[in-house]
Amino acid sequence: MKMETTIHGLTASLSPAKHAKKLIGFVPTMGNLHEGHLNLVREAKKICDLVVVSIFVNPTQFGPNEDFDSYPRTLEQDSHLLADVGCDIIFAPAVEQMFAKAPRKTNIQVTDITDGLCGHARPGHFDGVALIVTKLFNIVQPNYAFFGQKDFQQLVVVQQLVRDLNMPLEVIGVPTTRAEDGLALSSRNGYLTSEERNKAPQIYASLQHAKGALEQGELLTSVLEDMRSHLQAHGFEIDYVEARTPELQTITDFNQDIVLFVAAKLGKTRLIDNLIVHFAT
Amino acid sequence: MKMETTIHGLTASLSPAKHAKKLIGFVPTMGNLHEGHLNLVREAKKICDLVVVSIFVNPTQFGPNEDFDSYPRTLEQDSHLLADVGCDIIFAPAVEQMFAKAPRKTNIQVTDITDGLCGHARPGHFDGVALIVTKLFNIVQPNYAFFGQKDFQQLVVVQQLVRDLNMPLEVIGVPTTRAEDGLALSSRNGYLTSEERNKAPQIYASLQHAKGALEQGELLTSVLEDMRSHLQAHGFEIDYVEARTPELQTITDFNQDIVLFVAAKLGKTRLIDNLIVHFAT
Repeated sequence: MKMETTIHGLTASLSPAKHAKKLIGFVPTMGNLHEGHLNLVREAKKICDLVVVSIFVNPTQFGPNEDFDSYPRTLEQDSHLLADVGCDIIFAPAVEQMFAKAPRKTNIQVTDITDGLCGHARPGHFDGVALIVTKLFNIVQPNYAFFGQKDFQQLVVVQQLVRDLNMPLEVIGVPTTRAEDGLALSSRNGYLTSEERNKAPQIYASLQHAKGALEQGELLTSVLEDMRSHLQAHGFEIDYVEARTPELQTITDFNQDIVLFVAAKLGKTRLIDNLIVHFAT
Repeated sequence: MKMETTIHGLTASLSPAKHAKKLIGFVPTMGNLHEGHLNLVREAKKICDLVVVSIFVNPTQFGPNEDFDSYPRTLEQDSHLLADVGCDIIFAPAVEQMFAKAPRKTNIQVTDITDGLCGHARPGHFDGVALIVTKLFNIVQPNYAFFGQKDFQQLVVVQQLVRDLNMPLEVIGVPTTRAEDGLALSSRNGYLTSEERNKAPQIYASLQHAKGALEQGELLTSVLEDMRSHLQAHGFEIDYVEARTPELQTITDFNQDIVLFVAAKLGKTRLIDNLIVHFAT
């Protein structure tokens, strides 16, 4: 496994594989890796000849009051984990590599599907994601890129971006990896106190309960209301509990496949999760 | 020479050249070609193994009151001209190929350098240019792209876009091609009446005169004022007469290399031109 910290170095490392027409898979991350990230790499290994994992805490996707400075940086530990799952190249650039000294003047917005859900609580977040993903795709030039379904809205935004700009790659969503008690794996879980960690699985429990209720014919609006009550009763401060279509359009009745979304805070830590509920015709 | 009208067809046509690692040059145009376009192709032929010319009148770079519908479409004539200068592939997609049925949600803005000059009179124009150029670059995946210096602001905007988004290609600016009387070649010259066509060379004459005056030590502000008076006296309606640095920053004194810019109307036809004036230290 190689570690590259410059764009020039990465390009040189990738050159033989590109010339040999190998299929290149790409997993963009912010590091502090867990099994969810490693499963993205494992999926990439299944269909690609060479897998690049980027580790870059992207300043443009954090808001001014968010955790950019304190976001955990664990590069040495990450590189051991990536070597174990067969990652071929780590790309871990410094901020100056990605955002050069000359001032940047280009912005990318994905509209509509970034309204609401995490776009509401995190203004500018998806602009930052769209920008860094576009830059990384242009640098790595992969055939496939892998994103977790835990960040479902991000996955749909990136797929829209790639389609709208005719980027020459395919974006693949990988199912959420969960702890045994159901909690979706996330780097931010590390912020939880042990008491909060014990409560955190209630998010997934509420999603599963809602799925069962919908399948038994309960109304979507009352199911969502029950989720909110359940989570508040367990000490969560709710950011949103919502249903959307898989394309992120708002929906009020369970009359097609839907995705249930939760974002809620335990203490200072904001957790998100989602669950697809298929509509049986 | 091949003519491709679909993205799929173009990709198939380019595939052997890409596999053979040939250098691909790209000249994006809106058709109605003249010697200026043909010179871009000739420049591309000098350093590339294969040259693709796109002909696409891009709706997203026209304003609601601009000439999208009436913009001249002359594909058959264009293809003869391109064959003569050694173009390898024409890419002439229908609007539906470039803007699929599913609604587009992605926008790109290049800020700051699109303020003023043509960005003022044509709001949204450079957003449309940035979008179509990004899409075409992702479809063609060229090593080099060629743009005329006549649209100097557009050239700088595209260079900024490519740099900011780490697009894997180099943008090359090609000097303006002029008629014998100095008029910069432009598809829009075809809109001029014969009387207007006789007056039109005054734009370049005023730029050359201004260059001489600056080189003899006249103040930039008074040189620009003289240009305005000269053009108005010849019946032009001035949109702007301005000096900028080659990076498009505003400048009030001739103390470094500058670019003089003119946009002015003769009747209903808007003409633009520019001239670089080097500062002798």
